[in-house]
Amino acid sequence: MPQTLDIHSIIAGAPAAGEGEQITASAAFDGAPLEPAYRATSAEQFEAAVAAACAAFDTYRATSNDERAAFLERIAEAIDARGDAITERGQLETGLPAARLEGERGRTTGQLRLFAAVLREGSWAGARIDCAQPDRAHAPRPDLRHRLVPLGPVAVFGASNFPLAFSTAGGDTASALAAGCPVIVKAHQGHPGVASLVGEAIAEAVAASGLPGGVFSQVFGSGRDIGQRLAADPRIAAVGFTGSRAGGLALVRTAQQRPVPIPVYAEMSSVNPVIVLPAAVAADAAQIATGYVDSLTLGSGQFCTNPGILIVPRTPGGDELLGRVAELVRARTGQTMLTPGIHDAFQSGIAGRRGSSAVTLVGEGSAGDGPNAPAPVVFEADAAAFDEQLADEVFGAAGLVLRYDDPAQLAGFVEGLEGQLTATVFATEEDHAEAAALLPALERRVGRILFNGWPTGVEVTWTMVHGGPFPATSDARSTSVGAAAIERFLRPVAYQNVPAGLLPEVLRDDNPWGVPPRVDRGEGLQSHHGVADPHRRTARRH
Amino acid sequence: MPQTLDIHSIIAGAPAAGEGEQITASAAFDGAPLEPAYRATSAEQFEAAVAAACAAFDTYRATSNDERAAFLERIAEAIDARGDAITERGQLETGLPAARLEGERGRTTGQLRLFAAVLREGSWAGARIDCAQPDRAHAPRPDLRHRLVPLGPVAVFGASNFPLAFSTAGGDTASALAAGCPVIVKAHQGHPGVASLVGEAIAEAVAASGLPGGVFSQVFGSGRDIGQRLAADPRIAAVGFTGSRAGGLALVRTAQQRPVPIPVYAEMSSVNPVIVLPAAVAADAAQIATGYVDSLTLGSGQFCTNPGILIVPRTPGGDELLGRVAELVRARTGQTMLTPGIHDAFQSGIAGRRGSSAVTLVGEGSAGDGPNAPAPVVFEADAAAFDEQLADEVFGAAGLVLRYDDPAQLAGFVEGLEGQLTATVFATEEDHAEAAALLPALERRVGRILFNGWPTGVEVTWTMVHGGPFPATSDARSTSVGAAAIERFLRPVAYQNVPAGLLPEVLRDDNPWGVPPRVDRGEGLQSHHGVADPHRRTARRH
Repeated sequence: MPQTLDIHSIIAGAPAAGEGEQITASAAFDGAPLEPAYRATSAEQFEAAVAAACAAFDTYRATSNDERAAFLERIAEAIDARGDAITERGQLETGLPAARLEGERGRTTGQLRLFAAVLREGSWAGARIDCAQPDRAHAPRPDLRHRLVPLGPVAVFGASNFPLAFSTAGGDTASALAAGCPVIVKAHQGHPGVASLVGEAIAEAVAASGLPGGVFSQVFGSGRDIGQRLAADPRIAAVGFTGSRAGGLALVRTAQQRPVPIPVYAEMSSVNPVIVLPAAVAADAAQIATGYVDSLTLGSGQFCTNPGILIVPRTPGGDELLGRVAELVRARTGQTMLTPGIHDAFQSGIAGRRGSSAVTLVGEGSAGDGPNAPAPVVFEADAAAFDEQLADEVFGAAGLVLRYDDPAQLAGFVEGLEGQLTATVFATEEDHAEAAALLPALERRVGRILFNGWPTGVEVTWTMVHGGPFPATSDARSTSVGAAAIERFLRPVAYQNVPAGLLPEVLRDDNPWGVPPRVDRGEGLQSHHGVADPHRRTARRH
Repeated sequence: MPQTLDIHSIIAGAPAAGEGEQITASAAFDGAPLEPAYRATSAEQFEAAVAAACAAFDTYRATSNDERAAFLERIAEAIDARGDAITERGQLETGLPAARLEGERGRTTGQLRLFAAVLREGSWAGARIDCAQPDRAHAPRPDLRHRLVPLGPVAVFGASNFPLAFSTAGGDTASALAAGCPVIVKAHQGHPGVASLVGEAIAEAVAASGLPGGVFSQVFGSGRDIGQRLAADPRIAAVGFTGSRAGGLALVRTAQQRPVPIPVYAEMSSVNPVIVLPAAVAADAAQIATGYVDSLTLGSGQFCTNPGILIVPRTPGGDELLGRVAELVRARTGQTMLTPGIHDAFQSGIAGRRGSSAVTLVGEGSAGDGPNAPAPVVFEADAAAFDEQLADEVFGAAGLVLRYDDPAQLAGFVEGLEGQLTATVFATEEDHAEAAALLPALERRVGRILFNGWPTGVEVTWTMVHGGPFPATSDARSTSVGAAAIERFLRPVAYQNVPAGLLPEVLRDDNPWGVPPRVDRGEGLQSHHGVADPHRRTARRH
């Protein structure tokens, strides 16, 4: 029964009762304790997990694309096999409705399967060959081959707001495992039961795949203690994190202060501005209002891509939009937030808005059942009054509408923003000149630009970018969603005149993985697939 | 006349006499002042350079692949047009022989032309499209497109040991300009005349290409002052550096402490271990000895890839190798080092070796002409005595030979090393089992693995990796030589349902750049070239 679930750490691929301090999970609905209590991972268990990750690294990274793809697919199956238990426990722990948890589970297994496809496609490994040119004029050119290798054991931090898709088997874990990195998850205390169920699913897949147990561990404990210890451990090679700015920056600092610094991929905060241009709002204020309130209140507003700021012209259409938003939000009822702590932070954030003389209330809904389901609310201010305080993310269903007089103000406004995950423009063809003028500034400030849609709902595809300039993330060169997430955990190695029998499989002339490399025979780089014929090169070389 | 060259800053694409403090260049040969003195860049000139870089960014990054490629080729031509002046002045400033300076110039212009080819090939831009699926079962899939955009103005620090290939128009500048980033170079004080000549060549190409002047500036002054100011400036988006560990780490710290941290690509220090396996040395001790002493003493040993540590078995072949090395090094004469400061550091480094009880002298050559041409020298120690002190790089022609008893010791030895740019293995087929056992550890410690060759001489190709784990570089995910260097200055942006007329050219269906994107129509990602037919997609969509 999930309600009285035993919560286990996973140490080197095997479930193990925690041997550290006692912890009590609490219900999202009212903060009541969830029985039974469980135990944190002890220092000895932590050490065993990290040592096993290290020991497993070379074996795990030597597995083929097919072997790792099959492993990821087994994880997906083992999660689905626990689907009902996860949904039941997830509702208690997170307050998220069953349909959302089921949808998020589909996204999570879809993510694992996308990375299986990324592995089978094969170009992730960056296989390239410069053919030797023994007769080159000034000096012979050596045979040079290039591939990407995994960084080493990765620490992943579960996120409160996505107990599945950004937690134990979420995008960070899936992409790190795909890259060939063992993973140690620091489970989020907000959903330990879900973490434990998913952790067991991964452990089952590790065993079924015949992989060394060190490929996966999951630890429980406080972020300041066991989380910081993970980021500081010299055997950890990279960190994936989704959460608060304070939490992310603390990990970044720890990682920078190590004798050997490591990359931290922290996805932290974003207010995801939505800019409505005059012709768009004139054409369809009502539909924009509906889409906005839906996106703002989705999942109690607890999305990284929640549209925190809506930027609306002072036009009749803009006024109509605001009026419609007021009506709609007043009709909404609050949903339970993820944890009492997140609810407290939300209340404190909106108290700040209410206390600001620059801000007026547009509309407020009703509180939902229980003490942690605050009313959704929308405020309004003049765009010229926008300052650092108003720019702060209020995590939850609290919108801020900014009014502007002249579209020519907007580029300057965008320039003044911090880095964001997304920015959205509502525009008809009539607005395209204004939209075009905004685009260069948007490209410099965000990771994803949307037109005429809403930023919540992040597609998991080959092309998605869920990232963006600091402080949206700690590393704008990366994405935490989509196929390119695998690149975060890789680095290049070149092989110069390495004898054929000692080359890694992906770079061998007989190409056992079936992924043709890109090849330069001295006339420029040839593309993947079709053009490259390693045997022609081989024939010339030997 | 280069000997009495006027040294100019380049401010926003135009040569300008410095307005800061007076500086006197000095001759590498004896440290004598080189007339006339010149002036550092003033604070006002610095401000003008950075403001212009910022202002030029959007215009510059909007240029096409062909336009930027032609610009890089014009820089190469303008450098060659100043070839004799550069070589004449370079000899005075750096002590490097004319042939070396001419070879390095060829490498530098070759690098610029490689990045022109990288631009024309086009896959650098990461163009990918997920086609819309309006009829997808649970919800329509939007049109999603992905490309890489440049980070912004880049600060590049000239390196002492490569006055051309890693300085004003070196690999960092070439790759940042290729990526679409304006560049501000902090010239190295060891070769201000060469920097000024090359800076003028770039300025000429900026003007001839009709680009905004802000695309390129070059400033003179002390690294601690103007260099740190550059790395701290909020308008600078990334840093490229090749030099000392202390200098690199100071820039890393500055970049991390900014309100908005930025990436620093610092290539810092490496001792480039060369491991000789027993059968290889038995087969050809004399040739390995010759190759070693040639590589060790090349350019007075002032290469990032200098083979600082040679690891040799205690076998008759190993003894023969040592004897031959002793003979060869005794016959060598020192060459002028780059600066009196580098010469002082070299002397202090070898004094440390001489003072160590673990170390014995293998052989020492003769000092060359002048006060800054120390004798090349080779020391020997037991591999078991290798410690942090012996692991420190001595920049210059000072080799350390470590002796081992059993190849089974070698993997542990490699594990104990810090990150390196390169590692080399000398092996015959008989040694392959030992070599194979070493490879996983080498892959975890270095950026380039060589067999039966020498690490000096870095090919500039599509495939080269000149990088490696910390402290070889500050970011092991990158290379500073070769085509992939462009990736350091790019980040991804996704475009969701962006109207056709507002898409960046590289992502448009009519494909004006002629670089087909990779496309996913819902059945997995298709390769570049040939498979993609954007018009099929277009037809379905509109």
